[in-house]
Amino acid sequence: MTFGDRKRRLAAFLDEVWSEGRIKACDDYCADTYVVRHDPGDPWEGRTLDREEFKARVAQSRAPFPDQRFHIQSLLEDDGKVAVAWTWTATHRGDIPGFPATGQPLVMSGLTVYDFDESGRIAGHWQVSDRLSIFQQLQTQSAAAVSAPRS
Amino acid sequence: MTFGDRKRRLAAFLDEVWSEGRIKACDDYCADTYVVRHDPGDPWEGRTLDREEFKARVAQSRAPFPDQRFHIQSLLEDDGKVAVAWTWTATHRGDIPGFPATGQPLVMSGLTVYDFDESGRIAGHWQVSDRLSIFQQLQTQSAAAVSAPRS
Repeated sequence: MTFGDRKRRLAAFLDEVWSEGRIKACDDYCADTYVVRHDPGDPWEGRTLDREEFKARVAQSRAPFPDQRFHIQSLLEDDGKVAVAWTWTATHRGDIPGFPATGQPLVMSGLTVYDFDESGRIAGHWQVSDRLSIFQQLQTQSAAAVSAPRS
Repeated sequence: MTFGDRKRRLAAFLDEVWSEGRIKACDDYCADTYVVRHDPGDPWEGRTLDREEFKARVAQSRAPFPDQRFHIQSLLEDDGKVAVAWTWTATHRGDIPGFPATGQPLVMSGLTVYDFDESGRIAGHWQVSDRLSIFQQLQTQSAAAVSAPRS
């Protein structure tokens, strides 16, 4: 791996796997095990996943948001890690805890530090996303639905 | 500036200014203007601050949490920027919107990409913090207070 390889690989991984849902590509991008080191609100937080468990995490995470896209704002590579600042857009097509599907367009932002193994495969992450903004957007939607005139 | 200088400078800035509250040190660390590029929930989001306005932002942000500390989890430097993953501990000593002071210990996490000027002074940031966790911790506290037996 030379400098820049990890950034290019991570950008392609976010596009292909997380945005386009080509989950089989995890076979190329991901290490044998993947550690969700820190990710508040993620059901897999703290777990070490084998590749099939990681694929299941992607599939379950994408299910309520089938058109989701991650938009990279900046990428930094240092000491074998890559930090990425991102925004996220999606349509709320499936139920999530506390919020049945609304069909509403959503936006969110977050940052992630990705770990790599010696072969340059993605091996884990430390992430924070702005979960509160999702609750605020969906609560507004629910409030609007409740207060809509019934004719 | 050689590689690593910005990381060292940023770590010292977080310690001295944001954790210890030595706000005058902004004169050394900060550029003439500071751009809050992205920071959901921050009252200064989107603004370009002069140094006195930046100092006021630090003072107002720290006021409810006088013993707050940022704990660096990782630092990445690339292309003149530094990304930092952090956890935050504080005691809730002053009122914040929706939540009068509780005296409760709080924890939070987040990541920030910091911008620098040509002289290596800090010139802005793009940040996401896990605001939802603060709401959850304080709502639990409020719920506990409400349900406490009255004798």
